[in-house]
Amino acid sequence: MEAGDRLITKIDHVGIAVASIDEAMVTYRALGLEIEVIEEVPHEGVRVAMLVCGESRIELLEPTSEDSPIARFLERKGPGIHHLCLGTDDIRAADDELREAGLQLLRPEPTRGAGGCWVQFLHPRSAGGVLLELSQPADDALSDEETE
Amino acid sequence: MEAGDRLITKIDHVGIAVASIDEAMVTYRALGLEIEVIEEVPHEGVRVAMLVCGESRIELLEPTSEDSPIARFLERKGPGIHHLCLGTDDIRAADDELREAGLQLLRPEPTRGAGGCWVQFLHPRSAGGVLLELSQPADDALSDEETE
Repeated sequence: MEAGDRLITKIDHVGIAVASIDEAMVTYRALGLEIEVIEEVPHEGVRVAMLVCGESRIELLEPTSEDSPIARFLERKGPGIHHLCLGTDDIRAADDELREAGLQLLRPEPTRGAGGCWVQFLHPRSAGGVLLELSQPADDALSDEETE
Repeated sequence: MEAGDRLITKIDHVGIAVASIDEAMVTYRALGLEIEVIEEVPHEGVRVAMLVCGESRIELLEPTSEDSPIARFLERKGPGIHHLCLGTDDIRAADDELREAGLQLLRPEPTRGAGGCWVQFLHPRSAGGVLLELSQPADDALSDEETE
């Protein structure tokens, strides 16, 4: 990180758990938002519809299996906002800073997520009840020299 | 609205209910995010800390009275994401489109919100469980010719 650089660059996306993408789109379509792409993530049991919204995205998460995390979220809490993802250009530095502050991350190190981007998650216990995701674009190299 | 204009321009902010702004800032400060301004809204019983995040903001909402909506939210659901606000340059057109789609708005028409901007809310029932706010910047004139 150079002095003056911001570790967090933007809100990357807001993930919203929905029972049905089609039903949810009645609202977003009335606001002129359209689905740019739908991605199936079989190992997480979810279909993801991405709506572009300025520099950010709204991601509608619809379960495709009854025992997926999103299905369990819907059962426990009902539909609504599931997680907030902040964009960064240096996820290793963010990972380091969060560990140094004594905060609990969900993975030992950043891993490849959808579209090849690098992702990490803060435990809701360490982020005031919010499932907070960090994401670095796929075309950025991880800064190995800044970590062990 | 001109053809090609987008009704929704960006994610304006994500509102997060917290018991304590100071405690919540441990996480956000580790990510390099700082409070730009704190606003007290006495009639809503809330202190709002605004963190700039690209073209968007994160708003931390701390209750200042026990019977405020945010205090009741914390009691009912615990801390976490409270609402999502989308930015628009034409809130009257958005209001019209949502009504025409049969969706339930919380106010008869857009009203002045914090900082003089125009705001409207969708009932969570009409937005898949999300308290969805719309906001138009204070310096934009409302387009009276497009509405009655």
